Amino acid sequence: MTTTMRSSIASVAPTPQTIDAETSLYEHKKRLTIDSMSQSLRKMEYAVRGPVVIEADKIADQLAANPQQYPFDHIVYTNIGNPQSIGQMPLKWPRQVMALVDLPDEVGIDHPDVLKLFPQDAVDRAREIKGHALSGHGSGAYTHSKGVRAFRQDVADFIAARDGGIPSDPEAIFLSNGASNAINMVLTALIANEHTGVMIPTPQYPIYSATIDLLNGHRVGYFMNEEKDWALNLEELERALAQAQEEGIDVNSFVLINPGNPTGQVLSRENLHDIVRFCVKHNLVLLADEVYQENVYEGEFVSAKRAAYECGLLDQIELISFHSVSKGVFGECGRRGGYMELVGIDEKVQDELYKMASASLCATVAGQIMTSLMVRGPSQGEVSYESHEAEKKAIYDSLKRRSTIVSQGLDSIPGFSCRPAKGSMYCFPSVEMPPGAIRVAKETGTTPDALYCVSLLKSTGICVVPASGFGQREGRFGFRTTFLPPEEEMQRCVEKIKEHYKAFCEEYAI
Amino acid sequence: MTTTMRSSIASVAPTPQTIDAETSLYEHKKRLTIDSMSQSLRKMEYAVRGPVVIEADKIADQLAANPQQYPFDHIVYTNIGNPQSIGQMPLKWPRQVMALVDLPDEVGIDHPDVLKLFPQDAVDRAREIKGHALSGHGSGAYTHSKGVRAFRQDVADFIAARDGGIPSDPEAIFLSNGASNAINMVLTALIANEHTGVMIPTPQYPIYSATIDLLNGHRVGYFMNEEKDWALNLEELERALAQAQEEGIDVNSFVLINPGNPTGQVLSRENLHDIVRFCVKHNLVLLADEVYQENVYEGEFVSAKRAAYECGLLDQIELISFHSVSKGVFGECGRRGGYMELVGIDEKVQDELYKMASASLCATVAGQIMTSLMVRGPSQGEVSYESHEAEKKAIYDSLKRRSTIVSQGLDSIPGFSCRPAKGSMYCFPSVEMPPGAIRVAKETGTTPDALYCVSLLKSTGICVVPASGFGQREGRFGFRTTFLPPEEEMQRCVEKIKEHYKAFCEEYAI
Repeated sequence: MTTTMRSSIASVAPTPQTIDAETSLYEHKKRLTIDSMSQSLRKMEYAVRGPVVIEADKIADQLAANPQQYPFDHIVYTNIGNPQSIGQMPLKWPRQVMALVDLPDEVGIDHPDVLKLFPQDAVDRAREIKGHALSGHGSGAYTHSKGVRAFRQDVADFIAARDGGIPSDPEAIFLSNGASNAINMVLTALIANEHTGVMIPTPQYPIYSATIDLLNGHRVGYFMNEEKDWALNLEELERALAQAQEEGIDVNSFVLINPGNPTGQVLSRENLHDIVRFCVKHNLVLLADEVYQENVYEGEFVSAKRAAYECGLLDQIELISFHSVSKGVFGECGRRGGYMELVGIDEKVQDELYKMASASLCATVAGQIMTSLMVRGPSQGEVSYESHEAEKKAIYDSLKRRSTIVSQGLDSIPGFSCRPAKGSMYCFPSVEMPPGAIRVAKETGTTPDALYCVSLLKSTGICVVPASGFGQREGRFGFRTTFLPPEEEMQRCVEKIKEHYKAFCEEYAI
Repeated sequence: MTTTMRSSIASVAPTPQTIDAETSLYEHKKRLTIDSMSQSLRKMEYAVRGPVVIEADKIADQLAANPQQYPFDHIVYTNIGNPQSIGQMPLKWPRQVMALVDLPDEVGIDHPDVLKLFPQDAVDRAREIKGHALSGHGSGAYTHSKGVRAFRQDVADFIAARDGGIPSDPEAIFLSNGASNAINMVLTALIANEHTGVMIPTPQYPIYSATIDLLNGHRVGYFMNEEKDWALNLEELERALAQAQEEGIDVNSFVLINPGNPTGQVLSRENLHDIVRFCVKHNLVLLADEVYQENVYEGEFVSAKRAAYECGLLDQIELISFHSVSKGVFGECGRRGGYMELVGIDEKVQDELYKMASASLCATVAGQIMTSLMVRGPSQGEVSYESHEAEKKAIYDSLKRRSTIVSQGLDSIPGFSCRPAKGSMYCFPSVEMPPGAIRVAKETGTTPDALYCVSLLKSTGICVVPASGFGQREGRFGFRTTFLPPEEEMQRCVEKIKEHYKAFCEEYAI
């Protein structure tokens, strides 16, 4: 049916070509080439959707044409934290509210049969959003460049409640197209010139390295302590900063990812206090990537803001924190919703961020709505409250079980070591590489872990990302995997990884 | 009610502050200031949401508190092409399809009562999108970094049909968060270093000047010919290019906005052929901003691609064209949907653009869906076909009437001159400034047209954008206004502008 509809292309005969005497003589040479384009963009790397994933997509296409071509029938995409692409169901109530906000009133909230399809509390919230938050303009208009004021109020209320009452100012909140967009904005403002340096964890989520490279800044990596479940170590922070300063780098900011991506740690309160003091001491703007704040399976999430408050440094810290609807139990990646909160950022700098937000007009309204619904669900007593909470709990509980299945399963493979995934959606095991893999990688201009990941992909269909894409200590090898596929599939994956590793070690023994 | 719900903030007493002996001694000085931040961002200007608009928002807040404070009761926002913020209703069928795609199946397409609220063809299309285009993952998953393949196919089919059968390749189409996002990506790739220049029209839409400034490239302005309804003149293009090259600027690209923003022109076929030849002759990448291609009230829209084909230069041109769901008759600004088509762009450069798209994961899925629905509405014979076409026609016809009301109305004011708005959503009149306005502007460090616009705003509540924010010839003054508010309101606006101008000329006579 689809095909029939698409063949309705006008088959009007194209206007005959005019041979153009003058211009046809010009030499035909591309102006925009890999060499003439921005070299900052060219050198930028983004592993999460890099070569291994491109190879996986190719194999998926081949499998669609010929299911017998590989010893597996589908690709298991564990390269990216994209829960709804691999079976996680969306939470129902937020989708119902969103649909009602998008529907014109007469076929939505005002339709006589609306309650046949929608619960009362979804209708009520949609009516409130349309009438109050969106001032009657609906979801099809550009909003304020920072995002809808009432949604920013919802976010501020959420942050204040989360942090035990420390106030949050809706005027210092920007709604964004996912956290990536806000991170990009902030780094664009922070990186003043080619001397500017940004401290980033090693390993790190590659949006930071990619954006810093693109903006011609310096990445100043600090190592996390794998032995201590990827905790941060104050001496290591001081070392990394001092070394960069000796090299003439003007380090002005510090990126913290907590809970960790790709490393899955949940930092202790003491560790967070250390970081806050370090940033204040060295006058560094703290960028706190807290998109996994709901994904905590062991320990407690302490926000960077709360840590600053507890140290008595809330008035001194310059802090920008990021959150997103893509993670947590919402997993609404396709919505591109998120926010950042500015704390202690100079007013005039805030104005410049506002100007930058204005130049791209506003964040997608669907993402803004979802952000508001994430931070303010149905109220206790409303008809959807129980089911909404139950859906959230089921997703959380299953993620928690999977975090253990995968981290313990990988850790038990001889040659592997994997720290517990106390938070986020990832495990980041280290893998001993057989000598032949190291040699062949060198000969073929790749990394041993990239070689390993391609081999794993082609043998098992499991798509993971080489650890080299996130950064790690010299001589360490490994990969990042999500634990998002369903529990039985994750069990099978661990077994397959184990079997494949044995064969891989034999193949590359020397 | 809202207030009650919001007061549910946990009033847990914050943890007492620990006085931190060491760090409390550090001098408290902001690290990130207007002087230490990126100066490229600081100097960037974006007039469409600039100072006049910020002033208008302030007045709107004052009016809400005290409706008697100004001689008007509301702000008429004609500063931005944001149709649904000022009364344009969304098209019904696309919203119905979108809502059904977002709803989980059991409370949406599979609900026994679905047809009580939704028409059959919306259900059918939603089922097709969910099952086929989104491969069962729904709208909550990240998609392919270029956007959903089936939606890119829809776009390619649309382009081919529009251009009389010239083929379009879905692999060369990227779906984006509105056109702005795609323009930003392309300029990021194009601007290799501080010597790179991009030819832009004067006047232009400020996303170009803003992004080029931010990327430290050179704006190479070419003047459009106001006397000839803002046509382009080949000699002027050659002059601008030669002058830039003499200054050592490496001009590698050319921006065309057709139909024009802020100028409202629809370029003739001959003019487009000239531009194509000029770009091929000088080996410039042509960036064709065609977001107003449906907003043509006089004349005919000819795409840059079709023009290249007609000149026999389709194999030689390097062309990137942009489109959006925010304009046309959809006006779905809040959705942030759009696309770009690459023609003749080097494969490896395409790979780099793909990498850049991957680093921000994907365009918002709501925008992708809306793009698909814009280029492929209900089919003839389907139940919503007639009403959908009728809604589109009503919006188009009214825009066409308003284009005449406003351009002729403004042109008839003594001291004003306004070319017909043959396309887009804007009029760009020139306004003679009384000597006092020029003097006072100089004294107060503003432009005469900014002074005029603030005066107009405070007297009438009409919010327009100073022409200086778009660029114009030395000594010309004026503003840009949309013609989006309802017809009666636009009539009243023209009258008010006329009255105010008389008073303004008296106030600033000397």
